[in-house]
Amino acid sequence: MQTLSEQILRNTIRIRPENSHKGTYGRVCLVGGNAQYGGAIMMATEAAVYSGAGLNTTLTDPANFVSLHSRLPEAMVADFHDEHQLESLVAAATTVVVGPGLGTDADSLAVLETVFKTVSPNQILVIDGSAITLVADKSLSLPNARLVFTPHEMEWQRLSGITITDQTDAHNTQVREQLNGIVVLKSHHTRIYTADDVYLNPTGTPAQATGGMGDTLAGMVGGFTAQFADLENAVLAAVYAHSAIADELAATQYVVLPTQIMHELPRFMHDHQAQ
Amino acid sequence: MQTLSEQILRNTIRIRPENSHKGTYGRVCLVGGNAQYGGAIMMATEAAVYSGAGLNTTLTDPANFVSLHSRLPEAMVADFHDEHQLESLVAAATTVVVGPGLGTDADSLAVLETVFKTVSPNQILVIDGSAITLVADKSLSLPNARLVFTPHEMEWQRLSGITITDQTDAHNTQVREQLNGIVVLKSHHTRIYTADDVYLNPTGTPAQATGGMGDTLAGMVGGFTAQFADLENAVLAAVYAHSAIADELAATQYVVLPTQIMHELPRFMHDHQAQ
Amino acid sequence: MQTLSEQILRNTIRIRPENSHKGTYGRVCLVGGNAQYGGAIMMATEAAVYSGAGLNTTLTDPANFVSLHSRLPEAMVADFHDEHQLESLVAAATTVVVGPGLGTDADSLAVLETVFKTVSPNQILVIDGSAITLVADKSLSLPNARLVFTPHEMEWQRLSGITITDQTDAHNTQVREQLNGIVVLKSHHTRIYTADDVYLNPTGTPAQATGGMGDTLAGMVGGFTAQFADLENAVLAAVYAHSAIADELAATQYVVLPTQIMHELPRFMHDHQAQ
Amino acid sequence: MQTLSEQILRNTIRIRPENSHKGTYGRVCLVGGNAQYGGAIMMATEAAVYSGAGLNTTLTDPANFVSLHSRLPEAMVADFHDEHQLESLVAAATTVVVGPGLGTDADSLAVLETVFKTVSPNQILVIDGSAITLVADKSLSLPNARLVFTPHEMEWQRLSGITITDQTDAHNTQVREQLNGIVVLKSHHTRIYTADDVYLNPTGTPAQATGGMGDTLAGMVGGFTAQFADLENAVLAAVYAHSAIADELAATQYVVLPTQIMHELPRFMHDHQAQ
Repeated sequence: MQTLSEQILRNTIRIRPENSHKGTYGRVCLVGGNAQYGGAIMMATEAAVYSGAGLNTTLTDPANFVSLHSRLPEAMVADFHDEHQLESLVAAATTVVVGPGLGTDADSLAVLETVFKTVSPNQILVIDGSAITLVADKSLSLPNARLVFTPHEMEWQRLSGITITDQTDAHNTQVREQLNGIVVLKSHHTRIYTADDVYLNPTGTPAQATGGMGDTLAGMVGGFTAQFADLENAVLAAVYAHSAIADELAATQYVVLPTQIMHELPRFMHDHQAQ
Repeated sequence: MQTLSEQILRNTIRIRPENSHKGTYGRVCLVGGNAQYGGAIMMATEAAVYSGAGLNTTLTDPANFVSLHSRLPEAMVADFHDEHQLESLVAAATTVVVGPGLGTDADSLAVLETVFKTVSPNQILVIDGSAITLVADKSLSLPNARLVFTPHEMEWQRLSGITITDQTDAHNTQVREQLNGIVVLKSHHTRIYTADDVYLNPTGTPAQATGGMGDTLAGMVGGFTAQFADLENAVLAAVYAHSAIADELAATQYVVLPTQIMHELPRFMHDHQAQ
Repeated sequence: MQTLSEQILRNTIRIRPENSHKGTYGRVCLVGGNAQYGGAIMMATEAAVYSGAGLNTTLTDPANFVSLHSRLPEAMVADFHDEHQLESLVAAATTVVVGPGLGTDADSLAVLETVFKTVSPNQILVIDGSAITLVADKSLSLPNARLVFTPHEMEWQRLSGITITDQTDAHNTQVREQLNGIVVLKSHHTRIYTADDVYLNPTGTPAQATGGMGDTLAGMVGGFTAQFADLENAVLAAVYAHSAIADELAATQYVVLPTQIMHELPRFMHDHQAQ
Repeated sequence: MQTLSEQILRNTIRIRPENSHKGTYGRVCLVGGNAQYGGAIMMATEAAVYSGAGLNTTLTDPANFVSLHSRLPEAMVADFHDEHQLESLVAAATTVVVGPGLGTDADSLAVLETVFKTVSPNQILVIDGSAITLVADKSLSLPNARLVFTPHEMEWQRLSGITITDQTDAHNTQVREQLNGIVVLKSHHTRIYTADDVYLNPTGTPAQATGGMGDTLAGMVGGFTAQFADLENAVLAAVYAHSAIADELAATQYVVLPTQIMHELPRFMHDHQAQ
């Protein structure tokens, strides 16, 4: 097991090349947000935009279009019930983030199945929140893509079958191999399981223990993986940065809100990019 | 009678334990906000979120979903007309705040009655604004729960039958005993009546005399009682902090807006937590 | 003619009495905002809230409810097409501001006529924007109330019949007497015509020359007149403060946006209150 | 070819005359924003407002009214499907900006054709984004007006028929002559083709490579051309200022969001106005 350090940021956040355009920094599709949990996909989208992904489209319930645009005109929106549009937008993405606030009803399942059947092997697919629960509950077959799972401990129990108290590195590694993806197991000290190793994230604060924190992380993983070529490093850097920013804010705040973390991203990434 | 001091903050706002997650900090359900008074439940919700409650769900008229999410994607939303959902969300809450902007029509009454029949003895129920008026006007039986009332003087008159000029500690204490809850009687120097004693809040400023101030306090009481174990201290600390922040802001402002107070909460709670 | 000075602020913005509540600071009803010009009534409302009026209700097209609440949960909203509600809210107000973004179609006229027939002699009625045009075009009889008109030069031409080049103090004073109200004639140096005198506002900057500036002033006049007892002084102080804040902002800005002025109000009023 | 310098700002951003009003600073109509790409027209509108244009109206899909007003009550809105209103608002504008988020379907085309048939020779028409694609795809005849095109390299390929690798100054100049307008060819170092010369913009940063940056520039071109008399200088100054602000922000940010650029405009224009 390795403990992450600030070095993962310098290894990952490249200096942007002069001759580049928005296409250079990837396309992120964020899929989620039913009428009740719309805030989750809004927070994930804000995180992707503020981390610098080139183009960001949110596929969600139309009930969430206006609130999302009120906060973030930088994102494009589309109705995730429109299967044709969902397919064409997912197919064009560098990274797809599915799950934040998606819910677990029949509509949610249909959306998830469309995403799964559409993604191709070279695309990155981040499976978060309700999408993890649906995979577990409905025993869905995972698509052939570059998979990243971002469960908290209860979602990991559902997906892996390992009860929370049994979630040791040995057990988790075994299931990760079957899943054939990267697993970000969120807890007060998050661990990341990759094909290479197990990584411990040393950053993080109990001030982060509030709703929406995971949605923000999922969006950051989306934004980082869309622009930085090394998938494993991109995931590790997103996890490290997310909690490192929270640590900074917690120096003066009792609770850190998810949306506050995103707004620090442009500055934090500037200060920790490759030299 | 005791006069509160800053000590109530240090006695209440615990240092967050390292190994904790959002479930550690409670679930708050905020129930209110008809089409006309939607702002009230938005302000109450913001106060609960910024005070650090773990999970916050707003049960309101769907007309308020978009404006609430535009300001605060951290909150979940649900339609308070959906009795089944109202019951299941209320039943899962640590603290329920009912009343801000609820209104007093037949729909409002139906919502309140569902809340009353759903809460159980271990849950905290904060009864505010229109809910107090409805209890008084409709002579509703109070549920068996850990009750907190947050009336202003006119609402207290309606609920207690004591006219404003007769609202002495002796009279108020007598009615409080019948109500079997904590009473926060809001005025330019708020008094709090508990089973133990009467507390005078020394903080507060006329710069706070503007619409929405009470909604903010109700939300803070929700957020504090959901995360801090001692109910009485949690209420006292919320009342003290609310006006103490207003006092700070009034040093440079002629009027203090409710939403300004909430945004100071994370910093203020950091600076006044247990040592 | 007198030239206003900072002294008008100290004479008007009283130190808030300790023992006061939101009722002490008046009720403002803001009536306007059709679907196209909704921003105007939003800006007027923000100005009333930030100037410290106790309770603020916006009567507007329901199309504007969500955007208004997204910015300003402190305001209550109601549909201005609901004649009964319009009457009851107007009747309860200290000051009614009618006109920002109201439009000039048949619906707008119906709303204005309801306001006119509802206000009573002790109430303050600020007639702005489209409402001035409607009074002129439809030759409406003015209600018996404490009237304040806030026309720009073209609106004043319509209302008074005096062409812009002929708008001398002598001519304007004559029409003001017929109108029996206070006239705030907005231009790059606004003049205020009262029963006592003509006042010149020395503050103001061309950086203010942008849409919405007048709506903001109308809302400030609403907020000031609702809380400060002397009507004439309240109007004069609002006009002076509005441009004085713009002057401050223009020291570093090429253009000053209306919403920026409002957000400075609590600090500005604090710094210029009675001593 | 000339390389632009800060001097273009001082030559263009005039000191505002004391005796002026909002009419002095022009009317901008911004036409675009279908349901999916509504954010684009919102960003363009914000840029026009923050650059100081006197009056700004956004003609867009009604789905975007609330989100636009939530961010920016200073703008007026109208439905671009209402042909009569579209005509009358376009006819009254100093500058029309058409294209941001307009889309390319039949509705989009109908809107664009109405704009083209309505504008007159003295009006400035900025053709951006989807409008450029529509002109190219549908071989639309260009109207007789003062035209400004703001394509990125792929849009320019569509419009001019010159493939990206062949986009030399000689080729571009030739097509510009046929188009009889100013061409702003956006890339990491934007070039501007006018009847007089070719200008190279030396400002700009890869931190700008994110969705919405072009919409912001189109809105700034709208705002500058509406208030500054020399069309060519107004376009050049807008291009220079847009990237110069981004350069300033990129000193501390890894990515610069479009909305951040706009909010710096009033200060930046103040600091670089004529002396």
